[in-house]
Amino acid sequence: MLPILINGEPAEVLSALDRGLAYGDGLFESIRFVGAAAPLWPRHMQRLAESCRRLRMPAPDPAQLWREALEVACGMPQSVVRITLTRGVGERGYALPVPPQTTRVVAAFAPPRPAREAYAQGVRMRVCGIRLAEQPLLAGMKHLNRLEQVLARAEWSDPAIAEGVLCDQHGRVISATMANLFARIDGVLLTPALERCGVAGVARAEVLAACPHAQIAELTLDALLGAGEIFLSSSVRGIVPVQSLGDRVYAPGSATRQLQQHWRDLGFSMEHGG
Amino acid sequence: MLPILINGEPAEVLSALDRGLAYGDGLFESIRFVGAAAPLWPRHMQRLAESCRRLRMPAPDPAQLWREALEVACGMPQSVVRITLTRGVGERGYALPVPPQTTRVVAAFAPPRPAREAYAQGVRMRVCGIRLAEQPLLAGMKHLNRLEQVLARAEWSDPAIAEGVLCDQHGRVISATMANLFARIDGVLLTPALERCGVAGVARAEVLAACPHAQIAELTLDALLGAGEIFLSSSVRGIVPVQSLGDRVYAPGSATRQLQQHWRDLGFSMEHGG
Repeated sequence: MLPILINGEPAEVLSALDRGLAYGDGLFESIRFVGAAAPLWPRHMQRLAESCRRLRMPAPDPAQLWREALEVACGMPQSVVRITLTRGVGERGYALPVPPQTTRVVAAFAPPRPAREAYAQGVRMRVCGIRLAEQPLLAGMKHLNRLEQVLARAEWSDPAIAEGVLCDQHGRVISATMANLFARIDGVLLTPALERCGVAGVARAEVLAACPHAQIAELTLDALLGAGEIFLSSSVRGIVPVQSLGDRVYAPGSATRQLQQHWRDLGFSMEHGG
Repeated sequence: MLPILINGEPAEVLSALDRGLAYGDGLFESIRFVGAAAPLWPRHMQRLAESCRRLRMPAPDPAQLWREALEVACGMPQSVVRITLTRGVGERGYALPVPPQTTRVVAAFAPPRPAREAYAQGVRMRVCGIRLAEQPLLAGMKHLNRLEQVLARAEWSDPAIAEGVLCDQHGRVISATMANLFARIDGVLLTPALERCGVAGVARAEVLAACPHAQIAELTLDALLGAGEIFLSSSVRGIVPVQSLGDRVYAPGSATRQLQQHWRDLGFSMEHGG
């Protein structure tokens, strides 16, 4: 059995009337742990607090979440702790329950299988057919409304393809299905703006902080295909070079290698980030 | 305690790892029962089957759902049965579980408090600030990704305002937050097209079938404000006239009254539909 705490108590089940289930009314964070360390924890807590504010949900106490995360990850040398926060059980209907009683689910999972080859040589990608809807009031948040990502991931079953590029309704590149995306174009490191759709990943924020010259910019699919170097950033998987996108082939470049080193410097292990 | 069946067994809780909670990966139907009768049942089953196909989920057996709905609604003279269907428990990640094992939650609720005045004189509405995102691959379905409706409903707390008009990103009128919307303009009954966003309600489908001259059309907010008559259609609430929208005042018209009569003819009671 997976270790799970619900509102601080060991449990595996929650109310069938929870608004997280009824409406996807909540948020989550997937946090990579190395033993009892989570190098990106402060960024996860910052995003969670900001998203709670935007969704008008009471933010949980980070100290309490930290204790619960350590409890579920205890004994695992490597883990992913998923924190799910919902608006809890409410009456039928969309109106916000008063007073709000959030539900807090903290669960530890085994991390994805380490793939040294992926970190060394990169992964293969495709371009997804689905176009992300544009909703500024939800953009950037890691909320529980993820049907677009489910449909995007369902577009392919070839296990050799690791990820898919998602564009918005205007054809602008936004991200991969479960990672943010960076491209080096004419020597400049770029990542798409996420004001209208997409998830503002904590790994993306770490890359932007580590690379002050990186730019947030509009990125067309043509520009991405012509990039000199592409990599993915993910709080769970770290920095993953892109080896190919459809028919185009890329070599992992210096920006990728520097950021993989940065990830190791943060305390992530070889198995994780490089 | 509310009567709930989960995969056919009496239960109040479900796995914290269900994809319905993790990603809003599923669908629901809210079905109005009068005793053991549900006049719009076939339309609910039709929408559920079609949405399962679009989401690539196995569709449940309608005969089994009917038995379970009757079981939870048993003894209630009036009820709303909510059927929630999720893609079930899966591994972490968006990829579809193989084979799929859906979770089926069937629960009965007391219906909204009858409000004779609302059916007779109409309800007050406002225009919501949030604009619905446009996603043709999800439009029309009653899926579990409902954060936009939650945010829309959170825009007001005045109990005198019953509903809000939702527009899309281009300012076109789509629906109310929990009902579809019809307007009579220059003698023609119109309801917005729902190919890019919104939920295609079963009550809307019933109205369209009962009024062969009604048209599905693009509807601007200006056109709606200038309408001679506006009403809402909802499988839970029936046909509800709109008394005012912001500063504009409307009288319940002949189309509204005819459809309220149609609802009674279907077998819905005075308390429900007027």
